[in-house]
Amino acid sequence: MSELKTLFRPRSVALIGASRDTKKYGYWTAKSLFENKYKGDVYLISRSGGEILGHETYPDILAVKGDVDLAIIAIAPKYILPVIEQCVEKGVKSAIVVSTGFGETGAEGKEIERKMLEIARKGGLRIQGPNCMGTYSAAVNMNASIIDLAPGPMSLVLQSGNFGIDLNFNAKARNLGYSCWATIGNQMDLRFHDFVKYIEEDDSTKVLLLYMEGLRVESEEDGRKFIEAARKTALKKPVAAIKIGRSAAGARAAASHTGSLAGSEKIFDAALRQSGIIRVDSPNELLDVAEAFSKCKPAHGKRIAILTDGGGHGVMATDSAESFKLEAPVLSDATQEKLSAILMPHCPIKNPVDLAGTPEADMWVFDRCLDVLLNDPDVDGVVIVGLYGGYADLSEEFREKEMDVAKSMVARVRVSDKPVVMHSIYAPQRPECLAYISDRGVPVFDSVKAAMRTMGALVNYDEGRKALLEEVEAPAPTLPADRKEKTSAIFDAVRASGRINLVETEARDVLSAYGLPLAECHLALNANEAAEKYEALGGKVVMKIVSPDILHKTDAGGVMLNIDSAQAARDAFERLVDNGLKYKSDADIFGVMLTPMLPGGVECIIGASYDTTFGPTVMFGLGGIFVEILKDISFRVAPVNMPSCRQMIREIKGHKLLEGARGSAPCDIEALAETVCVISYMVNELREVAEVDLNPVFAWEKGLAVADARIVLHP
Amino acid sequence: MSELKTLFRPRSVALIGASRDTKKYGYWTAKSLFENKYKGDVYLISRSGGEILGHETYPDILAVKGDVDLAIIAIAPKYILPVIEQCVEKGVKSAIVVSTGFGETGAEGKEIERKMLEIARKGGLRIQGPNCMGTYSAAVNMNASIIDLAPGPMSLVLQSGNFGIDLNFNAKARNLGYSCWATIGNQMDLRFHDFVKYIEEDDSTKVLLLYMEGLRVESEEDGRKFIEAARKTALKKPVAAIKIGRSAAGARAAASHTGSLAGSEKIFDAALRQSGIIRVDSPNELLDVAEAFSKCKPAHGKRIAILTDGGGHGVMATDSAESFKLEAPVLSDATQEKLSAILMPHCPIKNPVDLAGTPEADMWVFDRCLDVLLNDPDVDGVVIVGLYGGYADLSEEFREKEMDVAKSMVARVRVSDKPVVMHSIYAPQRPECLAYISDRGVPVFDSVKAAMRTMGALVNYDEGRKALLEEVEAPAPTLPADRKEKTSAIFDAVRASGRINLVETEARDVLSAYGLPLAECHLALNANEAAEKYEALGGKVVMKIVSPDILHKTDAGGVMLNIDSAQAARDAFERLVDNGLKYKSDADIFGVMLTPMLPGGVECIIGASYDTTFGPTVMFGLGGIFVEILKDISFRVAPVNMPSCRQMIREIKGHKLLEGARGSAPCDIEALAETVCVISYMVNELREVAEVDLNPVFAWEKGLAVADARIVLHP
Repeated sequence: MSELKTLFRPRSVALIGASRDTKKYGYWTAKSLFENKYKGDVYLISRSGGEILGHETYPDILAVKGDVDLAIIAIAPKYILPVIEQCVEKGVKSAIVVSTGFGETGAEGKEIERKMLEIARKGGLRIQGPNCMGTYSAAVNMNASIIDLAPGPMSLVLQSGNFGIDLNFNAKARNLGYSCWATIGNQMDLRFHDFVKYIEEDDSTKVLLLYMEGLRVESEEDGRKFIEAARKTALKKPVAAIKIGRSAAGARAAASHTGSLAGSEKIFDAALRQSGIIRVDSPNELLDVAEAFSKCKPAHGKRIAILTDGGGHGVMATDSAESFKLEAPVLSDATQEKLSAILMPHCPIKNPVDLAGTPEADMWVFDRCLDVLLNDPDVDGVVIVGLYGGYADLSEEFREKEMDVAKSMVARVRVSDKPVVMHSIYAPQRPECLAYISDRGVPVFDSVKAAMRTMGALVNYDEGRKALLEEVEAPAPTLPADRKEKTSAIFDAVRASGRINLVETEARDVLSAYGLPLAECHLALNANEAAEKYEALGGKVVMKIVSPDILHKTDAGGVMLNIDSAQAARDAFERLVDNGLKYKSDADIFGVMLTPMLPGGVECIIGASYDTTFGPTVMFGLGGIFVEILKDISFRVAPVNMPSCRQMIREIKGHKLLEGARGSAPCDIEALAETVCVISYMVNELREVAEVDLNPVFAWEKGLAVADARIVLHP
Repeated sequence: MSELKTLFRPRSVALIGASRDTKKYGYWTAKSLFENKYKGDVYLISRSGGEILGHETYPDILAVKGDVDLAIIAIAPKYILPVIEQCVEKGVKSAIVVSTGFGETGAEGKEIERKMLEIARKGGLRIQGPNCMGTYSAAVNMNASIIDLAPGPMSLVLQSGNFGIDLNFNAKARNLGYSCWATIGNQMDLRFHDFVKYIEEDDSTKVLLLYMEGLRVESEEDGRKFIEAARKTALKKPVAAIKIGRSAAGARAAASHTGSLAGSEKIFDAALRQSGIIRVDSPNELLDVAEAFSKCKPAHGKRIAILTDGGGHGVMATDSAESFKLEAPVLSDATQEKLSAILMPHCPIKNPVDLAGTPEADMWVFDRCLDVLLNDPDVDGVVIVGLYGGYADLSEEFREKEMDVAKSMVARVRVSDKPVVMHSIYAPQRPECLAYISDRGVPVFDSVKAAMRTMGALVNYDEGRKALLEEVEAPAPTLPADRKEKTSAIFDAVRASGRINLVETEARDVLSAYGLPLAECHLALNANEAAEKYEALGGKVVMKIVSPDILHKTDAGGVMLNIDSAQAARDAFERLVDNGLKYKSDADIFGVMLTPMLPGGVECIIGASYDTTFGPTVMFGLGGIFVEILKDISFRVAPVNMPSCRQMIREIKGHKLLEGARGSAPCDIEALAETVCVISYMVNELREVAEVDLNPVFAWEKGLAVADARIVLHP
């Protein structure tokens, strides 16, 4: 927290590049600071001298007598380096560079950034920006932005000033404001994780919102720092994010099979999920969520009761429930009985509870039904949809009643421990009774979908937080103590022979070093040895060529199944080596491996690849058609513990196949999850591994078999 | 058209149940009629007598001297039958019953509906409602509703008055109004298709909107009439619909709301698609689409150029393109060259074209870039997103410029033949320049998603219309002339034996009668015959038990593969019959069938079932895991021609498998489509068929094989 304290709670601010020109940032920012009644001292720095907005100016920051905590810099790139040096000399701890023309414009700008960062790092100065729209902090009434921001329960960290404007219009219309607000621009120095970390400790923030285009990473550690900071924060308070650039996913070309599937968008999405962040799609949804988290009681379950006047809106709400992972179950007999005592016989009461025109006769049915629903132990939340808020339009005498009922409903929601959200077709007009409700803990939406989606976000956060806690508290897997020595020896040998591709026997040795149970495996160097090894194994065996030059063994005729005698093994050896040399005449052939033929099972893939933003990642998918046609894969940034590994398996579309489709027994999902877990710890530990591909893995009713394994190191 | 002419263009109206009570429909409707300056004569019918709103009243409709075209009836159910009789006596041709308490409340109300309909049918009176909120018709200034409706290019037919209110708020905010507007209530007499048919001919309607909970059907013909009417209309003008009750829970809720039969959601969705209707999800989307169709030039392709000031909004638009089936391709070199001559070097110009802050220096860049994009032959439409509309907020001197540029852009759009839609973060404030643009042919949205989704709807309608035309104009398949005699004979025999399930040999005969190519098939009645039949076939054969009591042959051990000798055939016969009798000791065993063993292929399912709303339907899916786990199936109401059959195959998720995944040759998609087509014609013709199940069908590189066939008749 302390690192950004001078940024968000400075005792004094210097605006460097203050201006009298009403079309310049240096003017707008000065105006913002004064008009918003910043609590500390403001020093205006202007080379032109004279007064600005009635305040004296200083020629440079060194001319200021008092201490300066924060410098806001609106100076063109070519003049900026000496200014940064002066800030360091003055002992300034934080700076915001709002000027543009840096890294975002090309190499020259990047070079200035590099030099600026060098000076700052040396001098203990942290910099926000450049190319940003400034900062707001309610704690000290500081509006160092050009946008008209107000205090409130949200904090917002964003990568685009325009989105700041966009969101703020909408926030104002909802009476929502900010505790901390920061545009982070080029993230030259301060990055998302720095802000997230600060806001974790900011008690005035009830909900943190992020608008992301991408992380700036110099190493995978930057991506991991973000996850770590976001996780910690999400355990304390809801974090919601827009991340744009979804469609750019998949553009990344990758040589290998799993790599090509691991588009960075999928990884980013997984990283957000792993961080406990609620991902939304549009500025409006972001604020819907923010409003709900600011106002509502936390959700503790997904069983929603829908209370409506108007069948159509009730049905629409019910339809939406499913898509936002809510349930609108038939209400209990006890509750239906209570409702039928309140409502007329023609009113549907199963859920939705449809008042079906009765409020015109008795407005209090709303309140009485809400009471019943909030007190039903099988109801976790209530969504009210339809016409409430517009009865006054039908008749003047309804106006007062509507307000009385609103007051009573608000009082009920206040003492209840369940979230309530509302839709009204009159919401856009914001009639008095809806304004009352909305200002007192029940967000009112103008679309049924938004109301249900928002209730979904409340529930989703609750579930996500529980899952995150479970994941964080789960033990790491127990791995063999000598694993690192063993793998180092293998990798050294591989590298010593000028390779980065491990052959299958080597890959199997690495997996074994991590304690993964693999079938017996023997390498035969000649036909006679093949026969001997066969005798040792007996039964039916698989024989495969082992060569770093033959990665796709099947294509090269390098695999033979069902070998069932020593003679067959001898013949197979010759044939496999022959095929290998036909495929690639100068192939370096290490030999032929023999493993027992294992029964097939459900074909899975477990793999790992390296993401430039987040480093090692792990993946799980169903093999064959599923992975190739449906891209049915789940990803996580490694390492992951068992709760997440189980979730990875559950979240693929074809998971029913593992649960025993077509009358077959369910697969050993725990064994699959354990393998995913070990692989994730392995790649997290062995950072020189670029790629792991266990494909196929046969999932059995008990246990599993890794039928092929490939590992590639970073060059 | 003529049938509903007196409803939408009456020369005179009688309001039966007119009232002085300001809380009654009979008052509100009278007020609406007078205030909206209805062009014809209004007769107020009130048993209480006296004047209402300064107009004389009549004790009953028979007391009116002049002709009455339309009666609006606001009378309680128990008094209504004599009133309907009087209407008939008076020669009234159309009536709107706005009162409630009919079929929607239970058996008693249904009975009144039945009697009312009987009187009306006999007397040549068509009735809208009951349980509706009336009608509006701009052609004669008739507002026979209680909602403040205005004239405009939309027509709206809806099943819920509340949605009428909901939509109208939103429509007013957009300056959009109606040509025809009707709430159809219980659809006792007049149904969706009647209104759709009328509006097809209404030239003032530019776009038709439907809000549907379900069709009221007495027979499948009602469902089919809707498709027919909607298709005709959709070929002339866009039709968009909300259909609620998508989810199972929603369908349950819908059933209790209007009592309309929800039917199968998948079939309803297919029917809407087959009708050329654009399906949307919310009232807002419905109006987005309506606004675009009212204002924009029609789309003729999906290649969209995105023009933005602000990178973030540009990326967000690009992200959305994909999800709304649009393309945002890299612009041509020629266009990029033209753009780079206009813009500064730091502006991205590939698509999105990002003005990146240059409008502050020169607002005309918007107009110049729009010109370039509209004139690019490889661009089918333009979406402008970002900050336009708010530059005046930055500086007063921008205000006039912004308006000048708006005027020029509007002029360009007017002479272009391409659709343009816009997003602005300033849209909610509706600044002057955006109001100018929006009122002159470019809808302006407050969310990027809405702008892209709406452009998507324009493109989607164009593509849907083309596909519909192709489908409608495609020839029906040529079917054998004697097919009906042959199938009648088979069905008669089946029914004569007290069955509705056809055994496989019978089902195969039916398919053969429709000209579907099937492998040779022989029925053996005893073991010797099995040996003889084997000799006739030779090679390897499949033998299956034939018994109406054994539907799941495999479960009963009733299938044997790879029979390769006469002796094996003899043995197999005994074994199959034995197994059959073990499975069901009193099974009626017809014999054992022999067909040649055919090579496997991609496993597909082709089937047909009967929908209560639309009658016979046809389906296509990939077999095995795909259908069982992923429910990867496409449906259509039968019959369908080849263009739709091909589309059915293309739209399943696993279609890549048919196109030759994993290095295998593509399947014969034409042969699959032809089979689907024939089955669809077959079930459409043979209405006594309840169900057809060809499962599996093996798709080959050339042709296909129906490996099992099942047909079930209606009881």
